[in-house]
Amino acid sequence: MATDSALRCPPDALAGVIERIGTLLGDRLSTNAAICEQHGHDESWHHPAAPDAVCFVHSTAEVASIVKACNDYRVPVLAYGVGTSIEGQVIAERGGVCIDLSQMNAIHAVRPVDMDATVEAGITRTQLNAHLRDTGLFFSVDPGADATLGGMASTRASGTNTVRYGTIRENVLSMTVVMPDGEIVRTGARARKSAAGYDLAHLLIGAEGTLGIITELTVRLHGLPEAVSAATVCFEDVAGAVDAVIASIQYGIPMARIELLDSLSIYAVNRHSGRDHPEKPTLFLEFHGTAAGVAEQATTMGELCREFGGSDFTWATLEEERSALWAARHSAAYAAKQLRPGMEFHATDICVPISRLAGSIEAAQADVAELGLTAPLFGHVGDGNFHLVVVLDRDNPDERAALDTLNERLITRAQAAEGTCTGEHGVGLGKRRYLEAEHGAGLDVMRAIKAALDPNNVMNPGKML
Amino acid sequence: MATDSALRCPPDALAGVIERIGTLLGDRLSTNAAICEQHGHDESWHHPAAPDAVCFVHSTAEVASIVKACNDYRVPVLAYGVGTSIEGQVIAERGGVCIDLSQMNAIHAVRPVDMDATVEAGITRTQLNAHLRDTGLFFSVDPGADATLGGMASTRASGTNTVRYGTIRENVLSMTVVMPDGEIVRTGARARKSAAGYDLAHLLIGAEGTLGIITELTVRLHGLPEAVSAATVCFEDVAGAVDAVIASIQYGIPMARIELLDSLSIYAVNRHSGRDHPEKPTLFLEFHGTAAGVAEQATTMGELCREFGGSDFTWATLEEERSALWAARHSAAYAAKQLRPGMEFHATDICVPISRLAGSIEAAQADVAELGLTAPLFGHVGDGNFHLVVVLDRDNPDERAALDTLNERLITRAQAAEGTCTGEHGVGLGKRRYLEAEHGAGLDVMRAIKAALDPNNVMNPGKML
Repeated sequence: MATDSALRCPPDALAGVIERIGTLLGDRLSTNAAICEQHGHDESWHHPAAPDAVCFVHSTAEVASIVKACNDYRVPVLAYGVGTSIEGQVIAERGGVCIDLSQMNAIHAVRPVDMDATVEAGITRTQLNAHLRDTGLFFSVDPGADATLGGMASTRASGTNTVRYGTIRENVLSMTVVMPDGEIVRTGARARKSAAGYDLAHLLIGAEGTLGIITELTVRLHGLPEAVSAATVCFEDVAGAVDAVIASIQYGIPMARIELLDSLSIYAVNRHSGRDHPEKPTLFLEFHGTAAGVAEQATTMGELCREFGGSDFTWATLEEERSALWAARHSAAYAAKQLRPGMEFHATDICVPISRLAGSIEAAQADVAELGLTAPLFGHVGDGNFHLVVVLDRDNPDERAALDTLNERLITRAQAAEGTCTGEHGVGLGKRRYLEAEHGAGLDVMRAIKAALDPNNVMNPGKML
Repeated sequence: MATDSALRCPPDALAGVIERIGTLLGDRLSTNAAICEQHGHDESWHHPAAPDAVCFVHSTAEVASIVKACNDYRVPVLAYGVGTSIEGQVIAERGGVCIDLSQMNAIHAVRPVDMDATVEAGITRTQLNAHLRDTGLFFSVDPGADATLGGMASTRASGTNTVRYGTIRENVLSMTVVMPDGEIVRTGARARKSAAGYDLAHLLIGAEGTLGIITELTVRLHGLPEAVSAATVCFEDVAGAVDAVIASIQYGIPMARIELLDSLSIYAVNRHSGRDHPEKPTLFLEFHGTAAGVAEQATTMGELCREFGGSDFTWATLEEERSALWAARHSAAYAAKQLRPGMEFHATDICVPISRLAGSIEAAQADVAELGLTAPLFGHVGDGNFHLVVVLDRDNPDERAALDTLNERLITRAQAAEGTCTGEHGVGLGKRRYLEAEHGAGLDVMRAIKAALDPNNVMNPGKML
């Protein structure tokens, strides 16, 4: 472990917390080494660090008691869903108490007329959508992993259909949050909009548990479209694919998904998911609407793609075909990892204005070649967001150095292009050093907010800021 | 004036500010009584209170100098656009310095590929859209007044097409903001999404100038649709109209506008704008899309409306007809005011989950009748938001008491229905006392943020919190 042990919380403080909350939680409080270690890593290349205790909570009130105890004893406290973050957000560098919310996965209400649902933060997106199956509604945000909704809100996640349905930010109506002093705050009403006071929900979304722990969410649901059609289309180069995407947005085609995979990603996906796509830069598309609307969108998009060199259209109209297509797309990061079995992966995550996307991708691919890295590329090109999944031996200093160089170059260029160092993965441990360049004086404002709300720095300390 | 003079800033502090910024601004700094009085009121019934000085600024740097001086001397500082707020947001109850941003209305960039624009905060929505006329793009947020974009962001405004294009909150990509200490913060990149740090843009949107002054914004633009069609349709009662709206949302008809006017509103609009709509509850609809898509939407919506008792469909397909229709709709508040010439108006602004909308409207109309008020109703029913435009003599204590009773009942019911006391008008002076019930412990969090960022309480003091 690379953790600086001087940072870890003192044993007597921890003992005080455990004594206070032990009776409350019984055997749902564990200091078992294996359980702690299991909660000390996420899906990233970052070195793990285990918390000192794990609490499997069942209610907001329990979370409030734990947080209050940790605050009183100055013990770090972190939230954990299913551990799918990829910038080390759940890594307990300073030890402390991990609050595992995965057993808080109840659905309190689904309201078809209002098209919303109130759920506990530990529910995953596939759990929620399985429950919604017969309602004609769905929850749209779909990061690659089957993350919890609390985790998705904490890291301001998005997914493949953001271009049509928005990120988690646009899909949360209100939240219940335990603040650092143990107070329970409901961040707003269930109305579709409100101008009543500061927008606490949006302040807490993306705060990575550094300002509070999300325990419940009311989220927007969307109606399942009458008709759905999906397609893949190949291009000779990435620039042609991006130009087709730009044209489709200019035309106002309301596409539900526009995903790009480069030839190496296609190779990896073909191997991992048993697909047989031509190994070329490929757009994965999905259209939602009425039957006539979908047909019209598909025709127009087909023409645009051909104009920019698109070929080898393959349509997936049956639900099973579409599911297989998107399952393959969602597992692209895992597929990439199999290019070098046993290695870790690091996914870069810049997001730029779409006019700068083709140039950013071209420069990134040149860097990957120059640095000798294995790094398939895929991305949510409708949003200007793409990932290079760098598969590396994290204990090899040369590979780490090459990754650092790649990330530095990518991010510096993205920020110069008025883009961001992270479109959807968050800051965690990995992006902290890039925030100064991105936010300047804004970083001081963030620090002032953090100091005001969490004066003892107990909430996921050392992350983000 | 109803102002408590004890609250006003001391003359010597003000003199210190004026001395500091006088050379910088020359004759763009005024203490002329008429100019100050002109900046001491908005469009609401709230009693005016003039600032002690008005600065007509030309740059973010000037705003920063003024704010810093005010902070150093503990003098209140308020931003002013064109004075169209309606909860007293610009009223200088404690005097101080008003920063008039209306001359900061430059357009720095319009980027057709990225579909965004960077503008100064003093530009109004019609100024921006006039500039965009030949680009095929438009800025969507359209409150009734021709507000400035800075004002719209400060009050978290929305308009008639929120149901399709979102409120100002969803249409701001980044902002330049002068913080209370005079620091200039850019709240984020121009990327469509970002997970890098706390969401300062969304914290500052809707903060009504209590945390900082917005000087520039980068906003999303939308493509003008290939085809547009508008229609009005009458119903026997409000419940039928609301049921039709709910059904249209369930069907997923991507309508651009769904506005309800009750019979008294129609009467007022007919008189004010020379229209001849049947005096019944009426939906004003607009469809955007491809020619075939709009035709399909209109057909489906027509069927749904008839199912819920809709009749007297009138279509407006020519651009002039549509413009006249929406001009009439946008002037509904002014039309209402003419029902009692010389009186002031107060627009209520609750927003509820749409399942609670029909009940809320019914109860509100019963209250209006019982209290003997003149109060036409209209609203953005797709969002669950409606206004009663209460036309009143604000110096008549009985009418004021009746308005207070109405507002109290409306808001109490809305909050009990998981709605909000304000959907889009903001808090200002008028809604402060309702925030405790709406936010509970969240209000303490807001106060902690305010105290951390504006420790001297100079930014629009007394508003919101």
